[in-house]
Amino acid sequence: MPSEYGGADERYRFKIQILQRYRFGLSCICTAHPGRNCDGVAMPTDSDRLLYERIAQRIAQDLDSDIYRPGERLPGVRKLAGQYGVSIATVLEACRRLEDGGRLKARPRSGFFVLRTPRIRAREPAISNPPRMPSPVSGQDMALQLAKAANDPAMIGLGAAVPHARFMPMHAVERALARSVRERGQAAANYAFPPGEPALRRQIARRMAALGCAVAPEEIVITTGCHEALRLALKAVTRPGDTVAIESPTFYGLLQVIDSLGLKALEIPTHPRDGISLEALDFALDQWPVAACIVTPNFSNPLGSLMDETRKRALVRLLAARGIALIEDDVYGELHHRGERPGICLAHDTQGATVLHCASVSKTLSPGLRVGWIVPGRHLPAIEFQKYLLNLATPTVPQMAVAELLEHGNYDRHLRQARKDYAEAVERMRREVERLFPDGTRVTQPEGGFVLWVEFPAGIDGEVLYRTALTEGISIAPGPIFSATRKYRNCIRLNCAIPWDARVERALARLGQMAQLQLAAQA
Amino acid sequence: MPSEYGGADERYRFKIQILQRYRFGLSCICTAHPGRNCDGVAMPTDSDRLLYERIAQRIAQDLDSDIYRPGERLPGVRKLAGQYGVSIATVLEACRRLEDGGRLKARPRSGFFVLRTPRIRAREPAISNPPRMPSPVSGQDMALQLAKAANDPAMIGLGAAVPHARFMPMHAVERALARSVRERGQAAANYAFPPGEPALRRQIARRMAALGCAVAPEEIVITTGCHEALRLALKAVTRPGDTVAIESPTFYGLLQVIDSLGLKALEIPTHPRDGISLEALDFALDQWPVAACIVTPNFSNPLGSLMDETRKRALVRLLAARGIALIEDDVYGELHHRGERPGICLAHDTQGATVLHCASVSKTLSPGLRVGWIVPGRHLPAIEFQKYLLNLATPTVPQMAVAELLEHGNYDRHLRQARKDYAEAVERMRREVERLFPDGTRVTQPEGGFVLWVEFPAGIDGEVLYRTALTEGISIAPGPIFSATRKYRNCIRLNCAIPWDARVERALARLGQMAQLQLAAQA
Repeated sequence: MPSEYGGADERYRFKIQILQRYRFGLSCICTAHPGRNCDGVAMPTDSDRLLYERIAQRIAQDLDSDIYRPGERLPGVRKLAGQYGVSIATVLEACRRLEDGGRLKARPRSGFFVLRTPRIRAREPAISNPPRMPSPVSGQDMALQLAKAANDPAMIGLGAAVPHARFMPMHAVERALARSVRERGQAAANYAFPPGEPALRRQIARRMAALGCAVAPEEIVITTGCHEALRLALKAVTRPGDTVAIESPTFYGLLQVIDSLGLKALEIPTHPRDGISLEALDFALDQWPVAACIVTPNFSNPLGSLMDETRKRALVRLLAARGIALIEDDVYGELHHRGERPGICLAHDTQGATVLHCASVSKTLSPGLRVGWIVPGRHLPAIEFQKYLLNLATPTVPQMAVAELLEHGNYDRHLRQARKDYAEAVERMRREVERLFPDGTRVTQPEGGFVLWVEFPAGIDGEVLYRTALTEGISIAPGPIFSATRKYRNCIRLNCAIPWDARVERALARLGQMAQLQLAAQA
Repeated sequence: MPSEYGGADERYRFKIQILQRYRFGLSCICTAHPGRNCDGVAMPTDSDRLLYERIAQRIAQDLDSDIYRPGERLPGVRKLAGQYGVSIATVLEACRRLEDGGRLKARPRSGFFVLRTPRIRAREPAISNPPRMPSPVSGQDMALQLAKAANDPAMIGLGAAVPHARFMPMHAVERALARSVRERGQAAANYAFPPGEPALRRQIARRMAALGCAVAPEEIVITTGCHEALRLALKAVTRPGDTVAIESPTFYGLLQVIDSLGLKALEIPTHPRDGISLEALDFALDQWPVAACIVTPNFSNPLGSLMDETRKRALVRLLAARGIALIEDDVYGELHHRGERPGICLAHDTQGATVLHCASVSKTLSPGLRVGWIVPGRHLPAIEFQKYLLNLATPTVPQMAVAELLEHGNYDRHLRQARKDYAEAVERMRREVERLFPDGTRVTQPEGGFVLWVEFPAGIDGEVLYRTALTEGISIAPGPIFSATRKYRNCIRLNCAIPWDARVERALARLGQMAQLQLAAQA
């Protein structure tokens, strides 16, 4: 059997099949029933693909015309199969497609239910399909340019994932900063040498406990943002030349750190809803010597995917069994749009030997504070010293201010509001993308965070769009910088955390026009 | 001729002579007159040494007994030579010794004048004499421990070079922080992506202009303290395995960065008054391939030495001629105890190709703010990107606060006061060291900054002293961590920037007793 991985022997054949399935966008495949899904139903073959696409479209039309209303149960798959004259497997796959698209929700042993989401024209992107081998990082030179655009007040900032001040409790931050200097005297003037300000570490430890992690304050090291935490973590568990497994697409800051530490990136297929493909990761770890795996299990950037707790546990076990470090980036973990705060991988690391957990308040309180942290487990002494080497200490007063905000409830109160605001902002942006961007555009439907990943129809070039938009004062993030190998050329990422006004709406309309023009130029 | 450098050929013979002279503590040797000093007077030979030491002691006694008063001119060297029955060269050398010790001041073509300094018992240390070859850095593990001790309010902090809040304008800092958040809105919440907050870079550019450097704001990159600036500079101009020339002794933070970047340190003899020996550096550069030279020309740490403008220019020329980068650390540049602010090497870099200038407000406004900067010259694009890779950005609000303090004069007003306070604190500490430490103890007499370098008589172990003192709640910095090769075992560094009280006085007395005990145990 031919394989993109080259030289794969007999025992990998089944895994390759699974991987290929994954590329078709199937969301739930266990490895126990080759050729069948978890319910034991036979999986559709390649020749079925066009068929279930058509069935999915017909069901979607029924949903659009209100034949089935939000909250109602769809007829059983057997019944629908009869109705459309196709196999059960085909109907099942069509329903899964609609589930991926956010139109339906499967409930175990009850069937598919119609979701209460607004009418959705744009589908979600399929699982990603990056190259199957480690690669050095290339073409990251435009990332700093992109970041700088975020600092230009004249620019409409849809590029960098930087929340506008309106999403931040700036008044509370101001008071906390002033009070910290006033009340903490010498301590506020002094360096907060690693591991950092004790009051802040105590507050973080309390929040970790609420997530099921018994972490002592002295096991936490404060960093200048989550980015620095990730850098320290990577440096602690790799040596130059090593390979690091990452989600694909992933945020460009991470790719740059990988590059600057002399590492190679192995991009793993990642589903816009479920996150990194464990099956593909498992396969890749068999093929390549991987030193560490970096994952953003909660609302990854740019896809916004969310791994459920089962998958988080499976990820930790998979890596623990192979002795590979898992660097967990939880910077978006508190920005779920509804329901409970999702858990973290660290809670599943019962041996305490696998996970290095990183987070910050950059997406919740203010990125300008640059307060992040790492729970490095057994790497604590090394991380503490490396942090000291980088810049001696993270600024003191911001740490004290964050500690105060965490302690006195302002933080949680603010978070409740911020979550609502982000959910609305993302939803609004998504609707506008559907309305204004060319037909066939796909867009993610994240359940947290504040970015959208837009996949244009083939032929639209995200980098050309980026450069054209920049000349009109609109900043977006082009797809290729989210890949070590410059994939995702027809993609862009949009930051939704900006105050919505006519200017932003016009900017989106212009982006849509620019994309249409690209298509027209090709036709 | 035997040489510590090994294998030195004929053409280095003269330089070796100069180096050996340097070790005797002569402060002014040009290379034009072998065997003679700048005045054309024959230099003393080794056999003269004990003799001029004795003459120096006799003149010092005359000064102590008020035979010659501050401001008065000493009799001419010819007259003194007749008076003591020795050669003119011997008298001249004795006077130079007293000049090094701060008792006399030579004025060109006028002779030696008695200085207005208080009665000084302890002599200054001689020029340092480090090993003559590049070496990896060892034994830096205790440095973070030392830093942490600075954070312990129960500890008497004579160890880390961290000024107490009392020396900082904390009230002004508090107001500036609060005002920045209040008035700058979105910009205060946002990342200040490299090169950093524009208002701050403008203020720094203005101050650079006053120092004779035409630096545009966009040529300045803000960093998280000067330490990070030095790290970025080193990373930009070296590759792992390279050798870096440094002052010896130098501050341990720098040694750790050298180590963490996989570099080797070449320690250059450094005079406690005049700074790095240009002659020794010149010699060393002939011998070893050196990628960069890091110098603190103004009030180096720990020696407090100050290079005059002629020597700064000579240093820049020496390195420019060889195409070697000069990393200038000017973090203490504004803490001169009297007179004008000294100049910087960058001002002498007329080609703009040699100097990377680094500084911060950590020693003037507050170390906890962690605001520093670098003027990297032609390395600007690389430094800007590397800064971005480290931690995306330096915290925003502290940058804005510093910009405001610089702009509205608070900074200069504070500096005038701080300089007085530091001068007094250093002078007081020096007096106490003279009073309480064993006979034969040498101590620097810095003209700026706030640290003292203490050289005990041979046999007193600074590391033993450090550990014993720690058990009594006193933190000092042991000599060996200021050397890549763990030299300076009989030395310690003292931080003078602490509020003076009975507790501190008792701590110094205890240190003196501990040192005496060590001597007694040997006798």
